[in-house]
Amino acid sequence: MPGPLEGVKVLSFARALAGPYTTMVLCDLGAEVVKIEEPGKGDIARLNGPFIDGISSYFLSVNRGQNSITLNLRDEQAKKIIFELVKKVDILVENFRPGVMERLGFSYEEITKLNPKIIYASVSGFGQKGPYALKPAFDMIAQGIGGTVSITGEPGRPPVRVGFSIGDIGAALFAAIAILAALHEREKSGKGQWIDVAMMDSQVALCENAYARYFATGEIPRPLGSRHPLMTPFQIFPTKDEYIVLITLFEEDWRKFCRVVGREDLLSDGRFQSHSDRISNYHAFEPLMIELMKTKTTAKWIGLLEPAGIMCGPVNNIAQVVNDPHVQEREMIVEVEHPRVGKLKVTGTPMKFNRTPCKIEKACPDVGEHTMEILCGMLGMSPEDVEKLRKEGAI
Amino acid sequence: MPGPLEGVKVLSFARALAGPYTTMVLCDLGAEVVKIEEPGKGDIARLNGPFIDGISSYFLSVNRGQNSITLNLRDEQAKKIIFELVKKVDILVENFRPGVMERLGFSYEEITKLNPKIIYASVSGFGQKGPYALKPAFDMIAQGIGGTVSITGEPGRPPVRVGFSIGDIGAALFAAIAILAALHEREKSGKGQWIDVAMMDSQVALCENAYARYFATGEIPRPLGSRHPLMTPFQIFPTKDEYIVLITLFEEDWRKFCRVVGREDLLSDGRFQSHSDRISNYHAFEPLMIELMKTKTTAKWIGLLEPAGIMCGPVNNIAQVVNDPHVQEREMIVEVEHPRVGKLKVTGTPMKFNRTPCKIEKACPDVGEHTMEILCGMLGMSPEDVEKLRKEGAI
Repeated sequence: MPGPLEGVKVLSFARALAGPYTTMVLCDLGAEVVKIEEPGKGDIARLNGPFIDGISSYFLSVNRGQNSITLNLRDEQAKKIIFELVKKVDILVENFRPGVMERLGFSYEEITKLNPKIIYASVSGFGQKGPYALKPAFDMIAQGIGGTVSITGEPGRPPVRVGFSIGDIGAALFAAIAILAALHEREKSGKGQWIDVAMMDSQVALCENAYARYFATGEIPRPLGSRHPLMTPFQIFPTKDEYIVLITLFEEDWRKFCRVVGREDLLSDGRFQSHSDRISNYHAFEPLMIELMKTKTTAKWIGLLEPAGIMCGPVNNIAQVVNDPHVQEREMIVEVEHPRVGKLKVTGTPMKFNRTPCKIEKACPDVGEHTMEILCGMLGMSPEDVEKLRKEGAI
Repeated sequence: MPGPLEGVKVLSFARALAGPYTTMVLCDLGAEVVKIEEPGKGDIARLNGPFIDGISSYFLSVNRGQNSITLNLRDEQAKKIIFELVKKVDILVENFRPGVMERLGFSYEEITKLNPKIIYASVSGFGQKGPYALKPAFDMIAQGIGGTVSITGEPGRPPVRVGFSIGDIGAALFAAIAILAALHEREKSGKGQWIDVAMMDSQVALCENAYARYFATGEIPRPLGSRHPLMTPFQIFPTKDEYIVLITLFEEDWRKFCRVVGREDLLSDGRFQSHSDRISNYHAFEPLMIELMKTKTTAKWIGLLEPAGIMCGPVNNIAQVVNDPHVQEREMIVEVEHPRVGKLKVTGTPMKFNRTPCKIEKACPDVGEHTMEILCGMLGMSPEDVEKLRKEGAI
């Protein structure tokens, strides 16, 4: 059974992360992605290690399943091929800096003349308009300028980045949503449109609650380590061996906790009666909790607390997640097939459909692996035409 | 001009965060969302402060634009109303723990009998199947168990959570994408389906690069503060007043940096020639860089480095982002109208369309604000019918 986007065609000018993560999501859902790469070199992300038999694990992770065609974007014959491909696809994704597509001759205006139904998605650091539009951006620039870094880390310590590239990936997810919303609208109107998604804007949308708190109080939200601003215990504690996430939501949860851990004495301690008492007396509460939680391993604590209805969980490292039976049953680690290298592991998709499930089966392409197939198949060229283009440096 | 999902109808059983963020995204795009709330109390998120004139800023932020109907889910008359509403909508979103919808009589099987075209989206901590399916989850539980916490924070320090609720919001974004992909597929097949998105699964998909590195090397990725694993300087440094994100990508960027900051002497220092030299000698490199970067304010550094082509940016706090001219021009802070309270600020949407722009204009509803309108408008009841239901405790 094919995925829900079977039959949808995407032309991708994307490189590095935000654009390719967008097209990966569409590809996971069953769309056919034609990724344009520079002859010889390909996407710069192919240079990012670590490598498995010469394949960039960084590139593999977000380009699995996609098809690669090499085209020299400055060559006139290659440009004509792009104009032909544009007529065959539903969606175009690019994440150049604003202005680059126009200089190459592929502006929204030009492309839409050839295919008025195309959904043209531009993903960039700061968007197509606004005073910062032409500034370059990397994940950490977006995380820093959009406020995300300012609320992540420990109080009184230097700010830290979110440990994965939410600067890029946040924008990629909003771009995928916007593309599919435009695809839906096209069914009625018959018209495509231009989508503009910025990494900085996406950080603001993701951190909505910090903004909401600021609008309500005028106080600037600060990093809290792992603590909750209004409740405690609601944080990560060290245990005998690792860490544990421990959450008491209602006051009854705290009373349950005290009974289960054999510390009924705390129930009558005036300093610790309510969430607000415990927060007011946190200087006394924290050392007491740390000492207590260090008396058992994470697994022992979860075995004790979970059956009692206390919400808790481990702080898994990446290897622990990979080997987790739930993760395996959910198919969140899958194997893809690479023609040269064989089976390679990648993360799966969290989008599970009962009737049209996603299938992640193919590895990432080699540079230009599908050039012949695309030019002959989609555009009806002959192998001789393709060879000629290759000799002339167009592909 | 309406948003791209104009005419799409959503029935929402969502509460707290993951479900409401999903329906918020659909609502921002122009869908009509009917949110079912418990009579009198409403969504538990309404209890989360801080409050503005009695309105929860937490609730406002993710429920702007939605319509609220009160229905007592255990009342037989209310159940019949839900069965009627189900026939009128395209999409159902729920984020109860698996099994709850079934016990209430609203399982996918039951709902699809009434509306075979419905797209039924279940967002949960661990998904509908798998050994952890019935465990409860909160944002931080998902961040901890899915590996996100293990790669966020400073090396050698306790793990920290991502400062916004990526556990919930990650799942919400994947759910929105899956719903729209299913909506597209329905245009061809005429059939709906059941979507199952888990918070834990979504963390794995977001942290794909950490998993990719682990698969390539077998080394468990660890938090790096704000540093890049392979390049330096590529991190956040303190300045005279605040912090700065500083990125040198190519070796030429480092040489440019040294010249611009007047430290050509470093160019001939054998310890700092290449990214790998600087990483090997980081114990000497870091104090030198900290001392250097502390000599000017963030604004001065950006004024000097940016024109020279060195990628850099501020670490803005939430107030700085709100007052940023770019953010204002991008309409990432917008005002919504509340009938009682007047204008309230919320974050905007990063999804910008040239032809069918999103409009965020309405505040969050009061509990049951639209009960009469929905029952009379969508279901054709009379105001007397509605009053009778109210007296009988159904709504």
